[in-house]
Amino acid sequence: MRTLIKGGTVLSPAGGVAADVLVEDERVAAVTAPGLFDTADTVLDATGKYVLPGGIDAHTHMEMPFGGTFSSDTFATGTTAAAWGGTTTIIDFAVQAKGTSLASTLDKWHEKADGNCAVDYGFHMIVSDVNDSTLKEMESCVDAGVSSFKMFMAYPGVFYSTDGEILRAMRKATETGSMIMMHAENGIAIDQLVAQALAEGKGDPVQHGLTRPSALEGEATSRAITLARVTGSPLYIVHLSAAEALSAVAAARDAGQNVFAETCPQYLYLSIEDLARPDFEGAKYVASPPLREKKHQADLWRGLRTNDLSVVSTDHCPFCFKDQKELGRGDFSKIPNGIPGVEHRMDLLHQGVVAGEISLGRWVEACSTTPARMFGLYPRKGVIAPGADADIVIYDPAATQTLSAETHHMAVDYSAYEGFELTGKVETVLSRGKVVVSPSGFSGGTGHGRFLSRDLCQYLN
Amino acid sequence: MRTLIKGGTVLSPAGGVAADVLVEDERVAAVTAPGLFDTADTVLDATGKYVLPGGIDAHTHMEMPFGGTFSSDTFATGTTAAAWGGTTTIIDFAVQAKGTSLASTLDKWHEKADGNCAVDYGFHMIVSDVNDSTLKEMESCVDAGVSSFKMFMAYPGVFYSTDGEILRAMRKATETGSMIMMHAENGIAIDQLVAQALAEGKGDPVQHGLTRPSALEGEATSRAITLARVTGSPLYIVHLSAAEALSAVAAARDAGQNVFAETCPQYLYLSIEDLARPDFEGAKYVASPPLREKKHQADLWRGLRTNDLSVVSTDHCPFCFKDQKELGRGDFSKIPNGIPGVEHRMDLLHQGVVAGEISLGRWVEACSTTPARMFGLYPRKGVIAPGADADIVIYDPAATQTLSAETHHMAVDYSAYEGFELTGKVETVLSRGKVVVSPSGFSGGTGHGRFLSRDLCQYLN
Amino acid sequence: MRTLIKGGTVLSPAGGVAADVLVEDERVAAVTAPGLFDTADTVLDATGKYVLPGGIDAHTHMEMPFGGTFSSDTFATGTTAAAWGGTTTIIDFAVQAKGTSLASTLDKWHEKADGNCAVDYGFHMIVSDVNDSTLKEMESCVDAGVSSFKMFMAYPGVFYSTDGEILRAMRKATETGSMIMMHAENGIAIDQLVAQALAEGKGDPVQHGLTRPSALEGEATSRAITLARVTGSPLYIVHLSAAEALSAVAAARDAGQNVFAETCPQYLYLSIEDLARPDFEGAKYVASPPLREKKHQADLWRGLRTNDLSVVSTDHCPFCFKDQKELGRGDFSKIPNGIPGVEHRMDLLHQGVVAGEISLGRWVEACSTTPARMFGLYPRKGVIAPGADADIVIYDPAATQTLSAETHHMAVDYSAYEGFELTGKVETVLSRGKVVVSPSGFSGGTGHGRFLSRDLCQYLN
Amino acid sequence: MRTLIKGGTVLSPAGGVAADVLVEDERVAAVTAPGLFDTADTVLDATGKYVLPGGIDAHTHMEMPFGGTFSSDTFATGTTAAAWGGTTTIIDFAVQAKGTSLASTLDKWHEKADGNCAVDYGFHMIVSDVNDSTLKEMESCVDAGVSSFKMFMAYPGVFYSTDGEILRAMRKATETGSMIMMHAENGIAIDQLVAQALAEGKGDPVQHGLTRPSALEGEATSRAITLARVTGSPLYIVHLSAAEALSAVAAARDAGQNVFAETCPQYLYLSIEDLARPDFEGAKYVASPPLREKKHQADLWRGLRTNDLSVVSTDHCPFCFKDQKELGRGDFSKIPNGIPGVEHRMDLLHQGVVAGEISLGRWVEACSTTPARMFGLYPRKGVIAPGADADIVIYDPAATQTLSAETHHMAVDYSAYEGFELTGKVETVLSRGKVVVSPSGFSGGTGHGRFLSRDLCQYLN
Repeated sequence: MRTLIKGGTVLSPAGGVAADVLVEDERVAAVTAPGLFDTADTVLDATGKYVLPGGIDAHTHMEMPFGGTFSSDTFATGTTAAAWGGTTTIIDFAVQAKGTSLASTLDKWHEKADGNCAVDYGFHMIVSDVNDSTLKEMESCVDAGVSSFKMFMAYPGVFYSTDGEILRAMRKATETGSMIMMHAENGIAIDQLVAQALAEGKGDPVQHGLTRPSALEGEATSRAITLARVTGSPLYIVHLSAAEALSAVAAARDAGQNVFAETCPQYLYLSIEDLARPDFEGAKYVASPPLREKKHQADLWRGLRTNDLSVVSTDHCPFCFKDQKELGRGDFSKIPNGIPGVEHRMDLLHQGVVAGEISLGRWVEACSTTPARMFGLYPRKGVIAPGADADIVIYDPAATQTLSAETHHMAVDYSAYEGFELTGKVETVLSRGKVVVSPSGFSGGTGHGRFLSRDLCQYLN
Repeated sequence: MRTLIKGGTVLSPAGGVAADVLVEDERVAAVTAPGLFDTADTVLDATGKYVLPGGIDAHTHMEMPFGGTFSSDTFATGTTAAAWGGTTTIIDFAVQAKGTSLASTLDKWHEKADGNCAVDYGFHMIVSDVNDSTLKEMESCVDAGVSSFKMFMAYPGVFYSTDGEILRAMRKATETGSMIMMHAENGIAIDQLVAQALAEGKGDPVQHGLTRPSALEGEATSRAITLARVTGSPLYIVHLSAAEALSAVAAARDAGQNVFAETCPQYLYLSIEDLARPDFEGAKYVASPPLREKKHQADLWRGLRTNDLSVVSTDHCPFCFKDQKELGRGDFSKIPNGIPGVEHRMDLLHQGVVAGEISLGRWVEACSTTPARMFGLYPRKGVIAPGADADIVIYDPAATQTLSAETHHMAVDYSAYEGFELTGKVETVLSRGKVVVSPSGFSGGTGHGRFLSRDLCQYLN
Repeated sequence: MRTLIKGGTVLSPAGGVAADVLVEDERVAAVTAPGLFDTADTVLDATGKYVLPGGIDAHTHMEMPFGGTFSSDTFATGTTAAAWGGTTTIIDFAVQAKGTSLASTLDKWHEKADGNCAVDYGFHMIVSDVNDSTLKEMESCVDAGVSSFKMFMAYPGVFYSTDGEILRAMRKATETGSMIMMHAENGIAIDQLVAQALAEGKGDPVQHGLTRPSALEGEATSRAITLARVTGSPLYIVHLSAAEALSAVAAARDAGQNVFAETCPQYLYLSIEDLARPDFEGAKYVASPPLREKKHQADLWRGLRTNDLSVVSTDHCPFCFKDQKELGRGDFSKIPNGIPGVEHRMDLLHQGVVAGEISLGRWVEACSTTPARMFGLYPRKGVIAPGADADIVIYDPAATQTLSAETHHMAVDYSAYEGFELTGKVETVLSRGKVVVSPSGFSGGTGHGRFLSRDLCQYLN
Repeated sequence: MRTLIKGGTVLSPAGGVAADVLVEDERVAAVTAPGLFDTADTVLDATGKYVLPGGIDAHTHMEMPFGGTFSSDTFATGTTAAAWGGTTTIIDFAVQAKGTSLASTLDKWHEKADGNCAVDYGFHMIVSDVNDSTLKEMESCVDAGVSSFKMFMAYPGVFYSTDGEILRAMRKATETGSMIMMHAENGIAIDQLVAQALAEGKGDPVQHGLTRPSALEGEATSRAITLARVTGSPLYIVHLSAAEALSAVAAARDAGQNVFAETCPQYLYLSIEDLARPDFEGAKYVASPPLREKKHQADLWRGLRTNDLSVVSTDHCPFCFKDQKELGRGDFSKIPNGIPGVEHRMDLLHQGVVAGEISLGRWVEACSTTPARMFGLYPRKGVIAPGADADIVIYDPAATQTLSAETHHMAVDYSAYEGFELTGKVETVLSRGKVVVSPSGFSGGTGHGRFLSRDLCQYLN
């Protein structure tokens, strides 16, 4: 079974070349000069289009338990929305509950996802209960293809780990070559600021931003970097949103430390002004770290250009405005944290290309190639090369679209980007050789996606 | 009752001038051109000597409870030793025990010190139980002349405060204009390293140093600076020992933040090599932060020159080798923390003048004038000027001495500086106009010293 | 002949003390508790006033040749204006012309000043012709009390020295312990920008600022610091105006290098908006470095607080608007460079005290004590202490005044601070014991001031 | 005419994939899954070997005039040696002599190279006579495929440009989108140090290093960066050798400025200790910037890892020891500057892979892909992809070799790496589809190489 993608510009981090792509069954068989092959079982015409490796969203939370509710996308709806948006791999988070084992946690998440995904998926493990047994289990997680462990310096009483627990987990990461991912906000200090705000009767959504100052993200980021240096562990800062944190990451990277960071589209496009929208509309924009003052956006775009921000993920964690976000009316600390976005990452970052913020090559790199290498999926994913999974997007750079909750495919009742007008649009998506999205619509299925057993990070010095 | 000090060189931070000093009762009445006055009730000849304001040791721990024992100097023995060494003011720490009030704590310390001190004294307050009531009491402490509050990022379970508690106390400091003093080591991470070392059977004193890496002092210092910036509080880093911490302080000061730091003679002269002395001798050198690798010493001397280190205090906290330090044989974590030093600070720093590390003016500034201004005692202390308390040292820069436990006056059975040969020696000491030390010996009394009600810091921008 | 100043607050860098000052002939005889002396030949009542050491302006240009004209103040008019403003010492610049010797230059400047000054004065030497003979003469200059040498990285063809020439002079400075003062702007690059602007028909005064970007002051400052590090020479950056330059100085000082900087009142209060005033009014504000964008002002005030800016001088270099500034109508590069200010420095900086930018002690330090120590005049100048010259200002902190060309005493037809309303005013000025300014007016004489043979810098590590 | 390279691991900056490469005539026709094609006119077995894009040496000086002599490799010998070492493209420097035009310079260099090269080549232009006419000609150079212009802050009187001239050229670079390449050493200051050393009778080769301190490379690098920022020009620092310069580049890159740098193998492997070899042997190691103290090497390797050093070139500039280097016996300033190396770059950097300093992907990137993109040759060069020139190296990572003047192919009588034992060796080299080096020897010809008309840099933000 052969598919031939003809006439397009094949993109990689280094830029584009005019080439055809031959797919055989699930994998790329050849990248050739235009016209080297003429025929195939299926021929897709990509004239005037980009042909790029499918997007990899390394940070999603499907049907995640949070404060008594669940994020509103199931693996089925969430991965289908991902496919619509040109993302053919997600890495979701299995969430260890206190008192449970990593093995049972992983089992539970496999159960949620197995047979329900429209695209391939992997797991990171959230470690929230550091003890001898958990640490030991980190080894078997790596063997099971879960080679990255997320910890929290925020959310005391829920996911929070102390610096001592972080140190222990980092030592195990050093030992196993696995990656520590860090939610870097000083949650202990923040909780104090939150308590003070509530005590002063300040309950609006904007308080969520005001009580989580960027200095406390910068502080936690610096602290995580120091702990990683003391232990020799690699470190990946998730959802970096603040200039202070970026400076800390840049300095560590200049010094040659294995420190990496991702940012998210919401930090590039949205701001605390959205959190301050009236009539509780701000609740739609509550996520942690919070949306920042606009001046941080230019820093983040620059960080993307300089590779101090290596990856763009979404931290997709949708909660409906109705019934879910509304839990926090009058008390911002009860608003479920999260913004939907898995569907729009590729488009929103392509808009950065249109605006001259990043190059075409950088778009592909930050959204696909680097997450693949960062999380041990390369060259199976993240590249169009012989032997790679045929996860391929045909992208029309000239098409236009308007984002809206009325048209998106995520299972959530609002869009954080309602009314955004974008240039560029996904035309066709192949997942492991199968066309799952095309101009005629979604042709995939939620049983198509397979679990990806991941290797170790491929960037470590 | 007039005393005339004739023929000396009167020192101040700006250098020396040839001048006579007239003392009337307890205070300085005049600083005059040589010979303006001829006679007085007492005439002291200071020809060829320095005449300087008495030393102020802003960090001592007399008879302090620690792990079931007490530091071995009482207020009586400790302040007498201080006088011998040219230090005419100490600021000791009242230690709040968990579950007690600041008021009762202060009462207890007043009781210990009242009528027992050879020189004047003030108190800082160690806050170890942050709650609404404690915070409220900070206000009355300031009114009672205790305008500085020490907190610990180290010693979990004992003095340790969380970042949230620190934040609360800092807000109160901002409100009252008082100073937060910080023991900046990441105690949570350190305890984990200590546990690991002990689990690996490593119990020698040198492990005390190896489990408290300088990076974790740098980290905590940066964190304290961030918390101070978030709250607007002034911050004074106690006993800074590490180059990383110095860099953090220097950066904050360049940015104009109200951040200050002290170092101690032990960090300028001793190193982790002393901690590694065989036969448990290393225990004599156990203090926190620990003695560092020698390379830090040059950085600290430079910091003294650049004023990024503003003050030299001793952190005097003596425990006898026999019976006290010995509590930690085989388990370094049980060795009482502390090094004796209140008697030798002026001499050890003068040795820095001799060695060309600091200027004469800087010696006086770091050991007397700056601590006076830092802790609200100026111009009552820290300067030889009309109206100031006549706390005056006549110092012979040419005399030599050898430090030894056999000759020192501190109530402790060893000297951390045993055998050190120094140039320069205290000749005569006046405390509030009274000669308490002279070539004929100690002529003071332990009822002479009075409590100093202190104002706010005089350096705040 | 005794003068007694009673009832005032005597200021020093550490703050103020209530004290009387006894002057005997030309010098301070005693600083005493209030009332220790009752009578004297003259008794000045300073109740409610500050009593401070006379100001030292370490950067003035009286009757300086520049582009075919001379700065409009003679030593007589300029030092008289200085006295009116509470400045009792100036250090002016002798200017070596190419092809002449330092000795003959110094002779010429002595001739200009001798018998013509209302207050004491010293000289720096501008070295503009670096050769073997000049370098040798630097030694005799130091012997003659001229221990600081100014060089220019700006003004190619006039004062400009190449980096090689600077290196040679710095080696000589290292050898002799003398100070290199640097006008740090990249004049070679600037001249190119000037030529381009003129070629494009841009001739207005504001172009003076636009063609001298702050980055090129930062660059030259960094370069001078590097050259000083390579040679071991001390370095004093004159008239620092730009945040970039301040950062470079701060970094060098943190590293312990002997680097110092001054700023001037015009950079603290005026901006490029003044240079852009219409109708050629901007010409009144042409000086080099140019007035900067307003945002630099906050950085400079902060630098003053942190002591990265150690001194405030005026760079007083007056040219009348009529006939002098007008030489550059249509061609900004022909406008004589300079702003008058010797009279207003003490008042303008006191205004910084009023505004909360700096402390009282810092005012005295930056305007008097530090320049004295920096340029080898301490403790003869810069302090009120026994043996010091009785250069004393009685300052009324509550008086108000409005600056204006109509009332100032400088020989120039405009004021850069026209209409500025200030709080605080000089009441009485003593120069070497003689009252030269009092509420009844100027009582000094232009023969009173004497040449000051200066020692070496007293700050070198 | 088809060539098939079978069974190898095809390398790119992202790592390696098992793939076959089909070449049709001069270009790559396809990269395929192993075995997709079976036959071709020529089949090369690459089993167990790397298949990588041919090396690009962006900095060579063939038959370059220097101080009355010429570098000893002609375009014929030099490009043949390059081919032997796996380098299939060089970019050499056309050298404008003062008083001549860029057009005539380019003509002359075309004449030298045309028909004489074994591999493809391009030119940078050295601008040494900045004037209106030269600046205008920069435009036609870009049109003629010479899109990068080298300037010198060193070598006064020869290639040196003033900061004003640099500013002018940079403005033209900004206008045309072309690149300024900079030799960043402060030559004016260095010449002074050289004159001093010679005056003191110090003439040995090691003086070449001692008179060019790393601080003066750091300074010039910072200055060039500032001038580039002022003008908006891109900047490429050639042959960076010093940690100080690296810091300046890293800071500029963090800030998002278009600043790039290359280092050379000699700075990674050799040191000032080689310059200090006795019996004038040090002369073999004289190049500018000079070999540094060994401690810089670790910084440079780190810079390669962090991409603050983007490119490794050789600065190949061979002079024979006999008759050429010997011109400087007794006067190090007369030793022709340069070290031979074009043949060994790929091997020496592969040794960095063996030693764990850099990854395989980084080897390819720094030696081939990045120089291609940096200098407008991508995707024609620097990648194995359809449509690219079939410049391909089959590299045996397991072979070993010993470097020696006896076996190398460069026309120079010594090797700077004499006796170095390396792991890894070029086996086969294709240049535009033709096998020019194989296990049977050199099969290319000096008429094969063609001039490469280059586009603009492909990295600019």
